Amino acid sequence: MIRAGIINVTGYVGGELARLLLGHPEVRVTSVTGRSEAGRRLPDVFPHLWSLDLAITEQLRDDVDVVLSALPHAAAAQALEPYIRAGTPVIDCSADFRLHDPDTYQHWYGEHPARDLLAQATYGLPELHRDAIRESRLVAVPGCYPTAAILALAPLLAGALVEDALVVDAKSGLSGAGRALKLGSHFAEVDGALSAYGLDGHRHQPEIAQELGALQPNGRTPQVTFVPHLIPMTRGILATAYATARAGALPAERQLARAELAQRYQAFYEGHPFVHVTASGPSTKHTLGSNACLLYPNVDAVTGQVVAIAALDNLGKGAAGAAVQCLNLMCGFDESAGLSVAAIYP
Amino acid sequence: MIRAGIINVTGYVGGELARLLLGHPEVRVTSVTGRSEAGRRLPDVFPHLWSLDLAITEQLRDDVDVVLSALPHAAAAQALEPYIRAGTPVIDCSADFRLHDPDTYQHWYGEHPARDLLAQATYGLPELHRDAIRESRLVAVPGCYPTAAILALAPLLAGALVEDALVVDAKSGLSGAGRALKLGSHFAEVDGALSAYGLDGHRHQPEIAQELGALQPNGRTPQVTFVPHLIPMTRGILATAYATARAGALPAERQLARAELAQRYQAFYEGHPFVHVTASGPSTKHTLGSNACLLYPNVDAVTGQVVAIAALDNLGKGAAGAAVQCLNLMCGFDESAGLSVAAIYP
Amino acid sequence: MIRAGIINVTGYVGGELARLLLGHPEVRVTSVTGRSEAGRRLPDVFPHLWSLDLAITEQLRDDVDVVLSALPHAAAAQALEPYIRAGTPVIDCSADFRLHDPDTYQHWYGEHPARDLLAQATYGLPELHRDAIRESRLVAVPGCYPTAAILALAPLLAGALVEDALVVDAKSGLSGAGRALKLGSHFAEVDGALSAYGLDGHRHQPEIAQELGALQPNGRTPQVTFVPHLIPMTRGILATAYATARAGALPAERQLARAELAQRYQAFYEGHPFVHVTASGPSTKHTLGSNACLLYPNVDAVTGQVVAIAALDNLGKGAAGAAVQCLNLMCGFDESAGLSVAAIYP
Amino acid sequence: MIRAGIINVTGYVGGELARLLLGHPEVRVTSVTGRSEAGRRLPDVFPHLWSLDLAITEQLRDDVDVVLSALPHAAAAQALEPYIRAGTPVIDCSADFRLHDPDTYQHWYGEHPARDLLAQATYGLPELHRDAIRESRLVAVPGCYPTAAILALAPLLAGALVEDALVVDAKSGLSGAGRALKLGSHFAEVDGALSAYGLDGHRHQPEIAQELGALQPNGRTPQVTFVPHLIPMTRGILATAYATARAGALPAERQLARAELAQRYQAFYEGHPFVHVTASGPSTKHTLGSNACLLYPNVDAVTGQVVAIAALDNLGKGAAGAAVQCLNLMCGFDESAGLSVAAIYP
Repeated sequence: MIRAGIINVTGYVGGELARLLLGHPEVRVTSVTGRSEAGRRLPDVFPHLWSLDLAITEQLRDDVDVVLSALPHAAAAQALEPYIRAGTPVIDCSADFRLHDPDTYQHWYGEHPARDLLAQATYGLPELHRDAIRESRLVAVPGCYPTAAILALAPLLAGALVEDALVVDAKSGLSGAGRALKLGSHFAEVDGALSAYGLDGHRHQPEIAQELGALQPNGRTPQVTFVPHLIPMTRGILATAYATARAGALPAERQLARAELAQRYQAFYEGHPFVHVTASGPSTKHTLGSNACLLYPNVDAVTGQVVAIAALDNLGKGAAGAAVQCLNLMCGFDESAGLSVAAIYP
Repeated sequence: MIRAGIINVTGYVGGELARLLLGHPEVRVTSVTGRSEAGRRLPDVFPHLWSLDLAITEQLRDDVDVVLSALPHAAAAQALEPYIRAGTPVIDCSADFRLHDPDTYQHWYGEHPARDLLAQATYGLPELHRDAIRESRLVAVPGCYPTAAILALAPLLAGALVEDALVVDAKSGLSGAGRALKLGSHFAEVDGALSAYGLDGHRHQPEIAQELGALQPNGRTPQVTFVPHLIPMTRGILATAYATARAGALPAERQLARAELAQRYQAFYEGHPFVHVTASGPSTKHTLGSNACLLYPNVDAVTGQVVAIAALDNLGKGAAGAAVQCLNLMCGFDESAGLSVAAIYP
Repeated sequence: MIRAGIINVTGYVGGELARLLLGHPEVRVTSVTGRSEAGRRLPDVFPHLWSLDLAITEQLRDDVDVVLSALPHAAAAQALEPYIRAGTPVIDCSADFRLHDPDTYQHWYGEHPARDLLAQATYGLPELHRDAIRESRLVAVPGCYPTAAILALAPLLAGALVEDALVVDAKSGLSGAGRALKLGSHFAEVDGALSAYGLDGHRHQPEIAQELGALQPNGRTPQVTFVPHLIPMTRGILATAYATARAGALPAERQLARAELAQRYQAFYEGHPFVHVTASGPSTKHTLGSNACLLYPNVDAVTGQVVAIAALDNLGKGAAGAAVQCLNLMCGFDESAGLSVAAIYP
Repeated sequence: MIRAGIINVTGYVGGELARLLLGHPEVRVTSVTGRSEAGRRLPDVFPHLWSLDLAITEQLRDDVDVVLSALPHAAAAQALEPYIRAGTPVIDCSADFRLHDPDTYQHWYGEHPARDLLAQATYGLPELHRDAIRESRLVAVPGCYPTAAILALAPLLAGALVEDALVVDAKSGLSGAGRALKLGSHFAEVDGALSAYGLDGHRHQPEIAQELGALQPNGRTPQVTFVPHLIPMTRGILATAYATARAGALPAERQLARAELAQRYQAFYEGHPFVHVTASGPSTKHTLGSNACLLYPNVDAVTGQVVAIAALDNLGKGAAGAAVQCLNLMCGFDESAGLSVAAIYP
């Protein structure tokens, strides 16, 4: 059993990390921190974790073997810097180590607290970077929207099947907005409410563009119009991605084109235990609490547009589940240890 | 007071017609029909209408002055044919009189029961066809998705501002799927579930294309990729429409482009009491139970794509509210009689 | 048209007062206040009220004919005192003028800001005090739970049908908890969550006891065990009240006992337009946005306990609707003006 | 690994049995049946179980070591009779083997298909009957409401602390109503709807009375007024139980009485891994997907009534989780194998 420390356990991602590791056969959570909640017991903050009765402290214990952080950006890099420099394996759920280009980071997030560390970081999407994650000591867990968008589009861009102009219409449940109090998270404001947000630009856009650009044979960064929406539900992300097939890239007949897409997606994700290509449009409902990502590539019946859909649990494969998957790879455990592909249903 | 009859009052659109007309100062509902529920009292089917204690019959009374139908397609045309031929004002909430081209109708719905009547019908979107509705005796209430999509995009196509390839990513609450029993409407299946549907083609697509094509100065039918999604909420539609601005059609600078779009939308809908151009992304929550349609045209911060968003209540402006608005125009009442622009909130 | 001022329009009750009065044929809202939002326009705070474009100010205009307050307790009495002393008709939605006994007030709420005014106040439940409300210039709108509990139990206590020990198990949607931000109102915390609260005593208990005691022929205050629960929905209260029939007070045979109860409830509420005795257990769904209160008295099939159920909209008959009903009585308008008995459905 | 068969896997309880056993270290599901779905693959019916790709058949394979049934009553006894007579360990989630008295069964359910087998059955509540379950080959999983009600009240009745007249006001999410289609389960009918049901008597009442009566030192069957309510959420039961303390049974001072109750509950459930006595009112939210039952005994601040609250997941501890817990005991596995006490949160 290795000993894991969770920094900022008191948000939704931190709580989910604790829940998942509580059921992990090779890991024991031995230390948890929280800023405003230091001094309390974990079950006082999260009653569902009454069987993990740890004290919440300001700092992690010294004797942890691996560090997982659920701090927001900037705070994460600051808190993790000593562990990274000391060579402790670190898994960060913030945006701090996701973008390779420090100028892009600065544009969206402000000055990076530790620019020189960016080069050590691996983007924690095992379906694209499994070997690199295995070798890495600093893994950046992808954003929840980017995980959905990238997995939905990766086979298209890697296969040079579509043009550069992409639309990602993404929808998320409320837990993605965090546990902090704001009017926009009040139940009476959210229930029955459906709206787009981030309409002046959303920080997950550059992450999607970076990873998709790296996949294109020509290396070009695609033009990604990314519009997120808030859905009155707690967990789940659905990304509906629209792309125009390159001339001649797919069969003209729709059923043949769909079959070809299905085959290419199957091949692209072969051997990846958490990605499942479905036979019809997937539902977030089939991912609740799991680490699964369901994908459905399709061709529009009227216009022939390629429409690729991804569904996942934003706190599972979109955050804490992905973190545990990366931890498993970094530590040499079974990639699926402590994780489930079967959702809670209904 | 004129006397109104509602055919098939027992579905959600029928029930909403009854509720709205119950508060209408110029109309009295005097006759309601329902297929399987004939013989019961209306409040036994809809307890919220306990103050409208009518018998549900198989046929309308003869002495109604106007007929509103909430029957599904095909059945609607059959039931309405005698009234239309007799010259009684008819408002139909089905698809039977929406498409001008009988072949297009046939492709999506099957053989039309009364092809020769199509020429008499007016598409019941007052924001595009107010004068024609005033003169018409047969009005087809638009589909809920088309209302949102068309109102979101109309100023762009009428102004020749965008290219022909459009994406409409639409999201609807469950009441749009009707009151019939199916696994997909079961609460435990819908709660927390988010998915796309109609991925093999949805019948509202040709309606959107027809109306947007008629708006284009060049008359060309645009290529509309239309993907609807089911949202775990009861009422509300949000349509997020994506279009590419024609070269030079909008200012290059984003804020200027947005301001120009806002101005054009304001001008296009001036004098239309139920359309409101908002200053930020609208929420379906602000339309519940009302006849309002909220519109927000925007320009993507990264790619410059035009993103136009519409929010409305699918049973209000998307169905029964629109029917009452058309009835008001047909009968020479105040266009807003019996209708509200203020939503129930929260 | 009389001119109404709304104090503290920016909460849920205040917003609902504005919405209802917007549709009132005899009243025009001419002035609205809000503490932290002063200086903004009303539609900036409540987008659903875009057609009521008033400035939010710190103080009401001088020329209002009637004052409605949606301030919380203590603040309400302080703000209203000058209007009351000046003889302006005042309708207060807080607890400040509900309890006749200042010591009881003090026990639950602290020192009363204006004890001497209590004697002028009328408890604003028209089904019990209609004539007094007509004569009053200071009406205290009942709490949402008390309205449901009292209307459910009133005929039983007035008829001396039950013993003194009562249980009221009440359930409310989230809007009853107000618009203020707290973890307990966060969507992700509420969705799928069902719990009791106020388990150390809830302030609505003494109000229920006061009114029910006054109804008993013997004048005794009953023993009311009151337990509220929070339900994952926005609007609606259901109160399930349990009482033991006095020996011989009801027929021994269950169907006869139920019929007798139904008859007594019908008689008790005859002539009250918003109370409706139902033929089976009512749903909050059938009250959304309306001023209706649905009642169902029953006798348990196994034990013979009397079980009386009330359903209403906590922001309608439970707050703002009741305020408008009282305003109508105070001003000599039709009791139903601006109010609806038909709910938004579904 | 033992081989388990699940009869009627296609409902919610059946699906949850499959999900739980998929993660069980000692059990492999090798055969599943479904009436109308025979011939399909399990993941076609339940996409969340895509990793358990079994054929759904009409009959179980012969080589299963244990049989779990999720059939409804009557059908269950018929289908299970051969296995019971053959001595195969059987766990039944229906009501068929819960009531010891065949006449009581007949009153509520009709003629029992196999009266003579009742004597072999054990009521599958390990917190009351753990040793008997270990020895049994036929276990009846308790109803979801009875599990909550009995666990909430057991220490009170076993300790002779309360009078015989009990009120159980119970609230359940929709999944308890099953997967069958009915208007009452339609999302648009349930969302925002709160109502009592079963007001002419509910079949779970005699089960509660039977078990609580057996606990009383005097063996008397208590008078249980049981009223269930439907809550707009998918999973979760909350039972709020009201009882009158016997004279002198509890300290007069409220805090002392509460402390004594807490202590008695702790002692009563000591060594039972899934029952947790909480320090404040529990929420169903903290039980989602787990096998936990959270209990909070309290004394009303005004009246001194004992109010005991239980929260659990109706498909977890209320059905499939309890079945797996019993299976573990019957097979000599760790009582917690395959089960979790930590809920999915939020």
